[in-house]
Amino acid sequence: MHAIVVNEPGGPEVLQWAEHPDPVLGPGQVLLDVVATAVNRADLLQRRGLYPPPPGASEILGLECSGVIAELGEGVSGWQVGDRVCALLAGGGYAEQVVVQSSQLLPVPEGMDLAVAASLPEVACTVWSNVVMVAGLARGDVLLVHGGGGGIGTHAIQVGKALGATVAVTASAGKLDRCRELGADLAIDYRSEDFVSVVKKQYGGANVVLDNMGAVYLSRNIDVLAPDGTLVVIGMQGGTKGELNLGKLLAKRGSVTATGLRGRPDHGKSGKTAIVAAVREHLWPLIEEAKVQPVVHAELPIAEAAKGHELLDSPETVGKVVLRVRGN
Amino acid sequence: MHAIVVNEPGGPEVLQWAEHPDPVLGPGQVLLDVVATAVNRADLLQRRGLYPPPPGASEILGLECSGVIAELGEGVSGWQVGDRVCALLAGGGYAEQVVVQSSQLLPVPEGMDLAVAASLPEVACTVWSNVVMVAGLARGDVLLVHGGGGGIGTHAIQVGKALGATVAVTASAGKLDRCRELGADLAIDYRSEDFVSVVKKQYGGANVVLDNMGAVYLSRNIDVLAPDGTLVVIGMQGGTKGELNLGKLLAKRGSVTATGLRGRPDHGKSGKTAIVAAVREHLWPLIEEAKVQPVVHAELPIAEAAKGHELLDSPETVGKVVLRVRGN
Repeated sequence: MHAIVVNEPGGPEVLQWAEHPDPVLGPGQVLLDVVATAVNRADLLQRRGLYPPPPGASEILGLECSGVIAELGEGVSGWQVGDRVCALLAGGGYAEQVVVQSSQLLPVPEGMDLAVAASLPEVACTVWSNVVMVAGLARGDVLLVHGGGGGIGTHAIQVGKALGATVAVTASAGKLDRCRELGADLAIDYRSEDFVSVVKKQYGGANVVLDNMGAVYLSRNIDVLAPDGTLVVIGMQGGTKGELNLGKLLAKRGSVTATGLRGRPDHGKSGKTAIVAAVREHLWPLIEEAKVQPVVHAELPIAEAAKGHELLDSPETVGKVVLRVRGN
Repeated sequence: MHAIVVNEPGGPEVLQWAEHPDPVLGPGQVLLDVVATAVNRADLLQRRGLYPPPPGASEILGLECSGVIAELGEGVSGWQVGDRVCALLAGGGYAEQVVVQSSQLLPVPEGMDLAVAASLPEVACTVWSNVVMVAGLARGDVLLVHGGGGGIGTHAIQVGKALGATVAVTASAGKLDRCRELGADLAIDYRSEDFVSVVKKQYGGANVVLDNMGAVYLSRNIDVLAPDGTLVVIGMQGGTKGELNLGKLLAKRGSVTATGLRGRPDHGKSGKTAIVAAVREHLWPLIEEAKVQPVVHAELPIAEAAKGHELLDSPETVGKVVLRVRGN
């Protein structure tokens, strides 16, 4: 088959569409003919050699995809050859074919374009697992989302609103209107405004903070937490080591959790199988009712993966970048 | 009535048994004739002027007591004058009488001496709320308790074992045997051993860490956490500000929570009413079956409160120090 191959770590130009050995189907897995994949920030890190795949995962980039089931591995039930699906992957999405545990498959939502569906698994599983399963966002809560214009941010805004929360976001100035259109009640320019004072003035504090900045925001994220609030760190674009004031945290009985999706085990209460099942049960209906919609900034052919990576870093990009591998 | 009065902050000698205005009974509260109270570390801080009572709370020391109900406030049901009870207090226990919300009362466990029961509410509510309600300790988990010889530590060891966990503790050398007698599977001398390497070697890591040291242990507590583990900080004897490595936390999907009991609201899912109700439902039966027993190091007359405070800081003290206010 063909896949995006990285012969040595580097800039976007190292991404080459080239021959690669076919994946090997194992028990409990399915083989997918990939229709599309999507770009995640982790892909940019992996391309630069900074985020090696977990043991046993494909070395090919790509943490999600959509496609059609080509073959069922031993013991797989509930799915048929020809089913249109999307999937959460530990790697391997930037390719013509991929194998994935059947427990990480999701049906393509009713009426959705198959390529667009490739943009959903990572944001859906990341937002649901962190905002709902870890932080327990409830109706009437205030959710603060950093990076409101990104793939995760644009999804988190909609999920927060669908669950009856008030949603505040930080983003760069050019993305604030789009965040408001997606439902954000409060959109804060992270460069010119202090999110702590704005959120505290407007709402008193945030019950849940979804953060992609890490160390540089740690202290301010604690400051903005409401009593019994939870900070969930899912990215560390602003560094890994920050000062934590436990006295402030204790005074509001706050929690700090840091999580990733890729390294989770398949099974157990925080495993991928449980997350995908919860997403299918609770979030998929919201998507089918169009209360939560995919936000795709651009769709490019997979051979232009390098351009896709550049787009993710562009200040104009709002939402996801999809890479199409073949026609539907 | 008489109460322990602190005319100005200072050492144990400022604690004086003297006249004090009677407490005023309000709706939803009961008036207790106090039989005994117990010393908590927070009392030592409050005595020194470092831990002011929350708004509306008595300025008298004492976060727990046992006694007999002398009068019911308006609207109180489920309790009778003459009932033998113990209570979680926001203050006021070092006195002949105290008023408390009826939702913070617990019956004296069957067969237990009334003065001994004064040693239970703080440790029971602290351990249950943090280890079970916040951190979700489950059968088969590893629980690491710092300060295993203290009031909270001696209780946490027993609760952990009763729930089917493996329990490791740190303590000073002289308290290790007593911790083992109470059920600790692994007792670590905090001065001569490195708890991170000992726990990791023995068990791989701890699913739940109950910490009273704060900043000085923060980094090592993150190191010792197992995947999906939770660090609960309930004391900051080693400072408040520490470096948090979010990269390490994310790699194991760990959580850091810091909580206190005193400042919690009465109501809501993390309120005192919910905690006391959970303790009565789940922990009280374990106490009545003697699977969890009170650990009282000494009982002193309330007029010797100063000596009680000194005892709490003594390296020989294991468990709680009870101050008796009147005969049963």
